[in-house]
Amino acid sequence: MSSDKQRVYLFDTTLRDGAQTSGVDFTLSDKVTIAGLIDRLGIDYVEGGYPGANPTDTAFFAEKRTSRAKFTAFGMTKRPGVSVSNDPGLATLLAAEADAICFVAKSWDYHVTFALGTTLEENLDGIRLSVEAAVARGREVMVDCEHFFDGFKANPDYALACARTARAAGARWVVLCDTNGGTLPHEIEAIVARVTAVVPGDFLGIHAHNDTEQAVANSLAAVRAGVRQIQGTLNGIGERCGNANLVSIIPTLKLKPEFADRFEIGVSEDALRDLTQLSHAFDELLNRAPNRHAPYVGTSAFATKAGIHASALVKDPKTYEHIAPESVGNRRRVLVSDQAGKSNLLAELARFGIEVRKDDPRLDTLLAEVKRREAEGFSYEAADASLELLARRTLGEVPEFFKVKRFRVTVERRYNARGELMTVSEATVKLAVGDDVLLSAAEGNGPVNALDAALRKDLGQYQPFIADLELVDFKVRILNGGTGATTRVLIESKDGQDNRWFTVGVSENIIDASFQALMDSVVYKLLKAGAPVLGITTAAAAE
Amino acid sequence: MSSDKQRVYLFDTTLRDGAQTSGVDFTLSDKVTIAGLIDRLGIDYVEGGYPGANPTDTAFFAEKRTSRAKFTAFGMTKRPGVSVSNDPGLATLLAAEADAICFVAKSWDYHVTFALGTTLEENLDGIRLSVEAAVARGREVMVDCEHFFDGFKANPDYALACARTARAAGARWVVLCDTNGGTLPHEIEAIVARVTAVVPGDFLGIHAHNDTEQAVANSLAAVRAGVRQIQGTLNGIGERCGNANLVSIIPTLKLKPEFADRFEIGVSEDALRDLTQLSHAFDELLNRAPNRHAPYVGTSAFATKAGIHASALVKDPKTYEHIAPESVGNRRRVLVSDQAGKSNLLAELARFGIEVRKDDPRLDTLLAEVKRREAEGFSYEAADASLELLARRTLGEVPEFFKVKRFRVTVERRYNARGELMTVSEATVKLAVGDDVLLSAAEGNGPVNALDAALRKDLGQYQPFIADLELVDFKVRILNGGTGATTRVLIESKDGQDNRWFTVGVSENIIDASFQALMDSVVYKLLKAGAPVLGITTAAAAE
Repeated sequence: MSSDKQRVYLFDTTLRDGAQTSGVDFTLSDKVTIAGLIDRLGIDYVEGGYPGANPTDTAFFAEKRTSRAKFTAFGMTKRPGVSVSNDPGLATLLAAEADAICFVAKSWDYHVTFALGTTLEENLDGIRLSVEAAVARGREVMVDCEHFFDGFKANPDYALACARTARAAGARWVVLCDTNGGTLPHEIEAIVARVTAVVPGDFLGIHAHNDTEQAVANSLAAVRAGVRQIQGTLNGIGERCGNANLVSIIPTLKLKPEFADRFEIGVSEDALRDLTQLSHAFDELLNRAPNRHAPYVGTSAFATKAGIHASALVKDPKTYEHIAPESVGNRRRVLVSDQAGKSNLLAELARFGIEVRKDDPRLDTLLAEVKRREAEGFSYEAADASLELLARRTLGEVPEFFKVKRFRVTVERRYNARGELMTVSEATVKLAVGDDVLLSAAEGNGPVNALDAALRKDLGQYQPFIADLELVDFKVRILNGGTGATTRVLIESKDGQDNRWFTVGVSENIIDASFQALMDSVVYKLLKAGAPVLGITTAAAAE
Repeated sequence: MSSDKQRVYLFDTTLRDGAQTSGVDFTLSDKVTIAGLIDRLGIDYVEGGYPGANPTDTAFFAEKRTSRAKFTAFGMTKRPGVSVSNDPGLATLLAAEADAICFVAKSWDYHVTFALGTTLEENLDGIRLSVEAAVARGREVMVDCEHFFDGFKANPDYALACARTARAAGARWVVLCDTNGGTLPHEIEAIVARVTAVVPGDFLGIHAHNDTEQAVANSLAAVRAGVRQIQGTLNGIGERCGNANLVSIIPTLKLKPEFADRFEIGVSEDALRDLTQLSHAFDELLNRAPNRHAPYVGTSAFATKAGIHASALVKDPKTYEHIAPESVGNRRRVLVSDQAGKSNLLAELARFGIEVRKDDPRLDTLLAEVKRREAEGFSYEAADASLELLARRTLGEVPEFFKVKRFRVTVERRYNARGELMTVSEATVKLAVGDDVLLSAAEGNGPVNALDAALRKDLGQYQPFIADLELVDFKVRILNGGTGATTRVLIESKDGQDNRWFTVGVSENIIDASFQALMDSVVYKLLKAGAPVLGITTAAAAE
């Protein structure tokens, strides 16, 4: 850290404004976990919620939940018409176990009179008295000026009076909020420039929303114009279109010279290398699939499909990547697609640890096979494990651990004896393993589920190797019209060590396609687990 | 349109750069449909692909696919070391049925010598000769300057020489591409300002990628700095983190005074009101769930969860919404009130020709049922026929034409007598129609196909009414992880008069979900065809 750089502070509101996201509903335990993630990342302020607003938030503020970051409670300034000591909401807020308090205050004159139903002067008094009370209580104080930019356009003097009042009363930060999210970067820049004449940038923050897809740009434009605190959320969650995405903002501040040369933040280079993992862990907690195309941290953020780019990329990645993927804990992916050439394939094989010379004729066989299968509907871009199996098979390295002799899946819908309509799915699978022949049957809540259960019910001597195999996700894509269409099934599996792998199957028959992907998943697991090759005896194979 | 506004042109590359998105794989029929969507929106240029690069793109350029937009073919400038007339790639491009040709050319000196392996001078010659050849062929020509911004930082003179050469040779547009996507808005603005000294902004375009989550901001910053063409994609699809999202850019250009007061685009206010529907239709085509939080068009883009905002919002929406949701075909969602849902439903019913009074208690029953089913995973946005059936059933108007007493579907995979692996799908369906009980069996190339064949094989006296029913499309979406997940099936049907209708089914069991959607399709057809009600006799029902 060079001392001539200016410090920019990061404020995370995932647990407060992020909790406004439709479909998101944090438990107390979620909040504890997420606060830990944010704290370890090196964020300066963790806003934990609104104590007094609901039992979860109140319980969350019963103790301090961060070790490095300042633990921050959110709440309203005192209500009009009551004194500071007679406002129960304010009392709860002041009593919260927090290092800092973030008040929200109206700064658009229309909202003061219309939504709050008070006078402009009383609103300023409310800001002043609330800030003073929190400062007296020993808290670091900040004031979120709600609707600041829309308010400034309507009545700049009043918006500025709110900012000036907050600062004069002792607030460490005056945060300019684009509450409706419709302000554009150049408006932000122009208005911030006018605010800094009243409150210096060192005391200003920005709180942007993504309603024009410019929350990141608005936040960075504000920093350029002088503000020194950025409020945002993990993965940009938040009401409507979300808040400014800290996961995109942090790498830009750390890695892009326009910012990195002038500013420093609390996130270390080591912490930055955990960013991809952190972003995915947060999605896991929200029980949603990570956005493959997320800037910096998405699985596809450094993926190349085009053959011509790929060959140059392998030669000199820097000229095709705007940052080094490793710096944010991500990695380069060269996709194998029908546009791909040998160099894509070689790069993938190297990643699997398969060494093969560029002029090896088996490489041409493999490439031809990949292209033939992709024309049939296979897609290996998102099915690493199936590609690795195909490659190892073509190079002659995958043993036949076991053989499926036949399977049958039945789905029956009928009225039972009590006249209720019911659907039953059942599968039987007959396997040869070593010199055993095993017949397993299982029910499921659908045909693929039943087939999966029957296949993995008894793999004989291999059973211990697949005991921790778990199916995480199952995707179906119909590749062309009609019920007689080609179906592609993509399966995500994981094991007890949290290894994850993806397999694919393609067929006119959805059950067949699912079976292929299931088989690849099981065989891949056996291969990686180093299962011994038993050899299927002639007798077992013939039975 | 006031004449003092400047025209900004929109260029859609969904079908070319968007096709680089991992997991996206357009068929010829997809391309035709998507080109139609973009054309109707009022985009100026539709880039359809790279004729000669693959059979789909070549076939797509066998005829012109747009009526209003200029149909544009993408390709490389002539290869080094061959003449224009001896370059087969260039010949294919020139022969394509296109109004315009977009050449990609290197403008970063390092890439010219390193990746292309040619001299700086020969690269300029390639640009000049290729542009001249396309102009001579009567095409409108543009040149995508690849890596323009990184190239400009490395060697501004050479990057500018590429731009100048393209324009001097007759290119209508010189497009500045941020190929690696790492350039920030202020860099874009500063560099564009320097380019306009060489090529005026009226001839410049911007092509931005979203690697720092600022593709929209970069595109708009470039327009502010003088460029007059924006390249982007529907819903921001594209390689890595995607291209600039036209669905976010268009409303900003149309509705935000900073742009709307100075510029005009080819998208009308009417077309803008179709934007939400277009964005969702495109996701449907990609078989993926629309992003609920997408700016302007997301289901949650105008949703408010907080009670305090919600009540003020109902009083005066303008102060809580940055634009009117209706202007982009979206709507306000206040999650505490059913009012919006009711009026929406009434509008849908009116569209079906169902008259019902707003205070009819059956309307509340129907609304509750729709909400219950949507919570279960049904989606009626894309399944009109199922919604109409549900409404008519709740209002007591759909007869029971026939009854499915039971069905069974079997999929078996085994070795046949000749030792070949084969999969057979078979279904039986038992129906009561009037006083007949009919048992039909059929094979298919998959379980749903077999079930469909058995169901429609013999509908007794109703058979003539469904003789022209045809399944056009079948889509499966897994709504949550694992093989035991909820499955939504969407079926598109049509008849001999080319009427098309969409039905939906949801279940843990994919066969059940498919059956529901198939049944809705058949019943809908019987209803619309005015089939008589035979009444199922007690004897037939009991058998």
